Amino acid sequence: MVSDRLSVTFAALADPTRRAILARLASGEATVTELAAPFRMSLPAVSKHLKVLEHAGLISRGRSAQWRPCRLEAAPLLAADDWLEQYRRHWSESFDRLGEHFGQAGPDASGEPTPRTTSHQQEGPSS
Amino acid sequence: MVSDRLSVTFAALADPTRRAILARLASGEATVTELAAPFRMSLPAVSKHLKVLEHAGLISRGRSAQWRPCRLEAAPLLAADDWLEQYRRHWSESFDRLGEHFGQAGPDASGEPTPRTTSHQQEGPSS
Repeated sequence: MVSDRLSVTFAALADPTRRAILARLASGEATVTELAAPFRMSLPAVSKHLKVLEHAGLISRGRSAQWRPCRLEAAPLLAADDWLEQYRRHWSESFDRLGEHFGQAGPDASGEPTPRTTSHQQEGPSS
Repeated sequence: MVSDRLSVTFAALADPTRRAILARLASGEATVTELAAPFRMSLPAVSKHLKVLEHAGLISRGRSAQWRPCRLEAAPLLAADDWLEQYRRHWSESFDRLGEHFGQAGPDASGEPTPRTTSHQQEGPSS
């Protein structure tokens, strides 16, 4: 009776350690000990993150009590990706506008390609 | 000095009302009153969600004190999409495995199409 899987998924992704764990699992199964190694974190702290990921369906764990390897489960990520899909045209429009702003001040005059800027470092539109 | 934009973005997306507000803004700018209308929510409650979205850079707001239309800002969604990108091959592999499991048990014997199941309702692999 989980009414809002997508919120649970996004909440689970809202943590850099949990995202790093998923990134590690993308290259294959791993035990809690193996997952904890790069994080300088206690096993209980890592286990807590794994519980959140498991609750969100982002990982599954083996059944053996001692050796419970974690495995990435990608289905919730697909649902998140589907949700983001509807906004794709918006960011392409945003970047078109940015391109116009920076590029069309005089694209033909200079013949230079549009200057590259990162999306987060854009200048204010009119200052 | 925000160190982890992506966590802030995912946390902002982890709420169905905030996602619905973004969906509304995808079709154009709107005032707080316009945004509140479909939610049966008080203006202060909607304003609180808008603050979270604004803090995450997912919306921007007009400057005029009385008329502060909200506008979708897609750049953080692009960053989230970029992060998800690395997992895309995993879910296509997952669905290939699912297809193999359901389809190759005996596709030629029955001649029936592969049974449709949702990814969350898959049967155990060997029962």
